[in-house]
Amino acid sequence: MSDRPAQSAAPRELGPTSFQDFVSTEPFPLELGGELPGLTLRYETYGTLLPDKSNAILVPHALSGDHHLAGRYQPDDPKAGWWDHFVGPGKAIDTDRFFVIGVNCIGGCRGSTGPLSIDPRTGQRFGGYFPEITLGDIVRGQRMVVRHLGITKLHAVVGGSMGGMQALLWSGDYPDEVGRIAVLAAGLSQSPMAIALNAASRACVETDPNFRGGHYVPGEGPDTGLAVGRMISHISYLSSAAFDQKFGRTRVPGAQPKDPVFWQVESYLQHQGQAFVKRFDANSWLRITRAVDRFDLTARAAAGRLFRKDGPEILAVGFSSDWLYPTSELRMVVAAATAVGGNAAYLEVVTDAGHDGFLLPDTGLSVRLHAFLG
Amino acid sequence: MSDRPAQSAAPRELGPTSFQDFVSTEPFPLELGGELPGLTLRYETYGTLLPDKSNAILVPHALSGDHHLAGRYQPDDPKAGWWDHFVGPGKAIDTDRFFVIGVNCIGGCRGSTGPLSIDPRTGQRFGGYFPEITLGDIVRGQRMVVRHLGITKLHAVVGGSMGGMQALLWSGDYPDEVGRIAVLAAGLSQSPMAIALNAASRACVETDPNFRGGHYVPGEGPDTGLAVGRMISHISYLSSAAFDQKFGRTRVPGAQPKDPVFWQVESYLQHQGQAFVKRFDANSWLRITRAVDRFDLTARAAAGRLFRKDGPEILAVGFSSDWLYPTSELRMVVAAATAVGGNAAYLEVVTDAGHDGFLLPDTGLSVRLHAFLG
Repeated sequence: MSDRPAQSAAPRELGPTSFQDFVSTEPFPLELGGELPGLTLRYETYGTLLPDKSNAILVPHALSGDHHLAGRYQPDDPKAGWWDHFVGPGKAIDTDRFFVIGVNCIGGCRGSTGPLSIDPRTGQRFGGYFPEITLGDIVRGQRMVVRHLGITKLHAVVGGSMGGMQALLWSGDYPDEVGRIAVLAAGLSQSPMAIALNAASRACVETDPNFRGGHYVPGEGPDTGLAVGRMISHISYLSSAAFDQKFGRTRVPGAQPKDPVFWQVESYLQHQGQAFVKRFDANSWLRITRAVDRFDLTARAAAGRLFRKDGPEILAVGFSSDWLYPTSELRMVVAAATAVGGNAAYLEVVTDAGHDGFLLPDTGLSVRLHAFLG
Repeated sequence: MSDRPAQSAAPRELGPTSFQDFVSTEPFPLELGGELPGLTLRYETYGTLLPDKSNAILVPHALSGDHHLAGRYQPDDPKAGWWDHFVGPGKAIDTDRFFVIGVNCIGGCRGSTGPLSIDPRTGQRFGGYFPEITLGDIVRGQRMVVRHLGITKLHAVVGGSMGGMQALLWSGDYPDEVGRIAVLAAGLSQSPMAIALNAASRACVETDPNFRGGHYVPGEGPDTGLAVGRMISHISYLSSAAFDQKFGRTRVPGAQPKDPVFWQVESYLQHQGQAFVKRFDANSWLRITRAVDRFDLTARAAAGRLFRKDGPEILAVGFSSDWLYPTSELRMVVAAATAVGGNAAYLEVVTDAGHDGFLLPDTGLSVRLHAFLG
């Protein structure tokens, strides 16, 4: 018998989790110009940081995620954190062994500095005046939290979708500060079709009369536009097979032909849209989707200035039915890294779940990710 | 030398075209219940009907199309009819040999009875009171025009997308009245994901404050919602490769990061949406998209009651990058027809154009369609 937790221990639930705020009063310069007058970043950690601080894994979140990766704040919370399938004791990102960090991104609406925050220069919310940001800004903010925790080199950065883009930026911008990155369901750039889908989603928000150029009072904002905009995005996260399996051509029970919501899939999407409005701010949605649309490392990768021979080890994970970030984009990450002698591998998860596949439990992925993290 | 036009003659432009109205004052019963108090169907024909009336080809239109298939009303019309690439003298559907018919569908807004029409019972526009319709209703209306022209058997029905669904209905409902059907970029049913995309598009219209439950005054309707809804649909008509080729990640010249329209693709989609509003009615959009969503012949095909051994010959044409009606759906049409001994063939057009591929010139398709029509 050993005191050391066995790697083969069955996955267990995390105990109650809690968040903390990192606060900086220093101006934070932004990549596109201007600055934030200060920065609050809400973060959450799981597991124990070793004395030599060598076991930290950062998990940047996707578009609508946050710092609450796993576990519950209260035992009766209806939902655990968004990546609870993968983060926890005995899980792929094993909190018995690793110190795992989630940070709400700059521009977000879950505690970090974003459009809902008060601008100390005016005493008013930033709202529509919140500046345009980039994923580079978001990563630079995360790095301040990592440094604040005394960590100079991360064991790994693991992220899906927008989180995967951030993992790529960590590898490119701070190659000596991260040992390995796992990039799931993302690519070297935001594709034109992905931009198009975000553009349609944003148009829903921006044409809602309550949007008022972004200068709405919280609670009286473009709820309708944001809900419909989220419907569009939600479609892009699934696959045709997922729609077949989840809904088929099932009708809402009792629906009459003239009823505006007739199909189960129609009802589901409307419900998802309305639920999203309760947890997300429209200006945050606009700033973050635009930051994602700006993401483009292709030229840098082609010029040999993104990956390097002795850079972080890379695992790129594609999901077979993901049409928003097709598997070809993940294979391109591996091709670009290996072209300069980098250590990179590709894993394909065969699934009908579409882009959302990275959020769902998958034994093969868990095993592979666990092994990759060492 | 022969007076008969050579089949190998180079394609030529049609002379000036014009439309006509078929008018019935008889009540027109609807599949989902209720009736229209009468029916006007705007149609257009090209070429000459043989004395034995054996050379007629009907071309039902897609969602936003109309009866104006080809040619120009005036020589300086900026655009020819929507299928001018395929319909005309010497073209795939050769108006030197065939009498070609286009009919604006019931529920449309280009001259046929639809929400913009006056309800003779009230003297007011139908508007939001226009009943729910089906593609079966639309086909039954077309058949009245065909009969009115003295035609008892069509040489062929050829249609893409919603037009292809109508071709399938002609084959199933009136197998003795059509010699062959060509089904392009459609399937045996509207898929759940295609419903989802239409649902999001409709939600844009229905949540526009100017929609007023459909009871808007023409010209003061939900233009903004319809434009954004059309953006969504337009995305589904293209492919990721088409977005790459047409727009890439090009920015609007001079656009600043904070500008709401920053990407060329964003600008293009907004332009397309706004242009659509000028030519389409929101209530028509809702009625027709819902008719398409209801389309489902799968159970009938599986039960052997859609196709038959001596039924119309079938050509199913899939477009390799069409993700709205994937090629598997066209192959399924052929499989279902051949399963009962029917005469059916599949043609795949390799293209990056996505669903819109059926609207674009393609030599291979032209040759094959020309041969299929005999």
